Amino acid sequence: MPTSTLFVLNQPSAKAPPHAVGAAAFSEHDPASPLLSALDLGATRGDGIFETINVGSGRPQALEHHLRRFVQSAAALELPTPDTDAWRTAILASIAALDPTEDTSVKTVLTRGIEGDGRPTGWVFATHSPDHTEVRVTGVRVVTLDRGYRHDVEKTSPWLLAGAKTLSYAVNRSVMREAARRGADDVIFVSSDGFVLEGPSSSVVFRRGDRILTPGTGLGILDGTTQASLFRYAESIGLSTGFQLVTPDELRTADAAWLVSSVRLAAPVRQLDGSPFPMDSEVTSGINAYLRSLRD
Amino acid sequence: MPTSTLFVLNQPSAKAPPHAVGAAAFSEHDPASPLLSALDLGATRGDGIFETINVGSGRPQALEHHLRRFVQSAAALELPTPDTDAWRTAILASIAALDPTEDTSVKTVLTRGIEGDGRPTGWVFATHSPDHTEVRVTGVRVVTLDRGYRHDVEKTSPWLLAGAKTLSYAVNRSVMREAARRGADDVIFVSSDGFVLEGPSSSVVFRRGDRILTPGTGLGILDGTTQASLFRYAESIGLSTGFQLVTPDELRTADAAWLVSSVRLAAPVRQLDGSPFPMDSEVTSGINAYLRSLRD
Repeated sequence: MPTSTLFVLNQPSAKAPPHAVGAAAFSEHDPASPLLSALDLGATRGDGIFETINVGSGRPQALEHHLRRFVQSAAALELPTPDTDAWRTAILASIAALDPTEDTSVKTVLTRGIEGDGRPTGWVFATHSPDHTEVRVTGVRVVTLDRGYRHDVEKTSPWLLAGAKTLSYAVNRSVMREAARRGADDVIFVSSDGFVLEGPSSSVVFRRGDRILTPGTGLGILDGTTQASLFRYAESIGLSTGFQLVTPDELRTADAAWLVSSVRLAAPVRQLDGSPFPMDSEVTSGINAYLRSLRD
Repeated sequence: MPTSTLFVLNQPSAKAPPHAVGAAAFSEHDPASPLLSALDLGATRGDGIFETINVGSGRPQALEHHLRRFVQSAAALELPTPDTDAWRTAILASIAALDPTEDTSVKTVLTRGIEGDGRPTGWVFATHSPDHTEVRVTGVRVVTLDRGYRHDVEKTSPWLLAGAKTLSYAVNRSVMREAARRGADDVIFVSSDGFVLEGPSSSVVFRRGDRILTPGTGLGILDGTTQASLFRYAESIGLSTGFQLVTPDELRTADAAWLVSSVRLAAPVRQLDGSPFPMDSEVTSGINAYLRSLRD
């Protein structure tokens, strides 16, 4: 079986014309062959959105939450609304083409297409995932870095697209290089007015006694799909969950913290800005066993 | 003759391997055919840089300044340093393929390529420009919009890539939609601490008496190639030039202001945040005649 598969949607949004009238809803494309025009605004302006969905035993996890967020990101960028039925079908087909016993993830990408053409570009790429087993146990060394924006920028300045999952992720990659320079593996963004936000590709979750907390919503951060799943697990084992805006100094006094994302799942923070950070192996392994077991 | 032409570089950086050993420095590619892999980080993460160069009578304007800025942007993103000789040759070849009597612009794009592959992707796209004659006379209606960042973020938080010309331009496009909603044509970004910065694809230049001013450098804004040319012109007609950090309220008291960019050249501001703004037709037409006449 192939280790990855790529499906291109003929009509990513019902609100925009199809690429070929009367063609199938999606078609397979060799991942090694060029797909995008040099004039596609996804490539020239990072003008598009994406989601990354984990697959457990051949089934996409938190699929509806991901599709909802995909639609919200499209709205923030005023892209034609994704046809979620078409995307769901293409996602399932891309997964079905791969070995269900392998860890897999699916990326969905929607771009504005070629300027003036009016037809967005959409594709689904499914591929086997790297093995994240070890990092889920040993944890990550994290540094806090200024994101530049105040924590309320999503409300005051919606044109900055904070909270949308866009293709304009050069900064999210740049901060990972800064982390490496500082001897760390990952990053927690801090607002310019001093509040913990999220990682460049994860949500921040922390434990304080029997409470599992995350900074919250409306802070120009993503509505975490895996964080939501983790909260359901926490509640099932009798922990309470909630939102709390904290400073990095307050985070340092937590009993444990995790960077939580769809594919790597819960990576415990073992070092924060160079200082050791407490890890809770028991809760961590319970969280990851639960997240790995999700089937929808 | 064709109206556009696309050349793909075999080895965009001497510090990274070529795409094909022993191949020509660049090859022509049909702009209508797909060029980029769906896995290219330029397309999936906006992880790359670009320049847009104006062409006058078949010669690229401010070419060396553009190439220098291209190299600076690459450094900010830690991309392999562009081989400026290879880029210059491809730029000149792309221009030579088009009718020299037509207004033309050239875009250079360098992406990080496919994750783990180690070979950046580079191309040059030359195309005839839309006619900007009218807007250079009638001017643009401009709104000021918060960029979210403090004016000193380039120094405090270099990982935010402020001042680099990256492919992550979703916000630069989003603010143009916000401008349209407000009945305007263009935008002047303001720092979160209240200083005038630049437009999403232009520099801000203003006149106060016999001084021609721009906010300056190191403010997380681009080192304007056309602004630099405009300053040379201003000095040639006896005006002084300089840098001045101003608030939007201070800008409102200027004698004239322009949004200055490579292809549209100097567009006079005729309205700022809904209020009429003074235009200086004589200086404007002098500036644009000079900018259009540039041959290097």
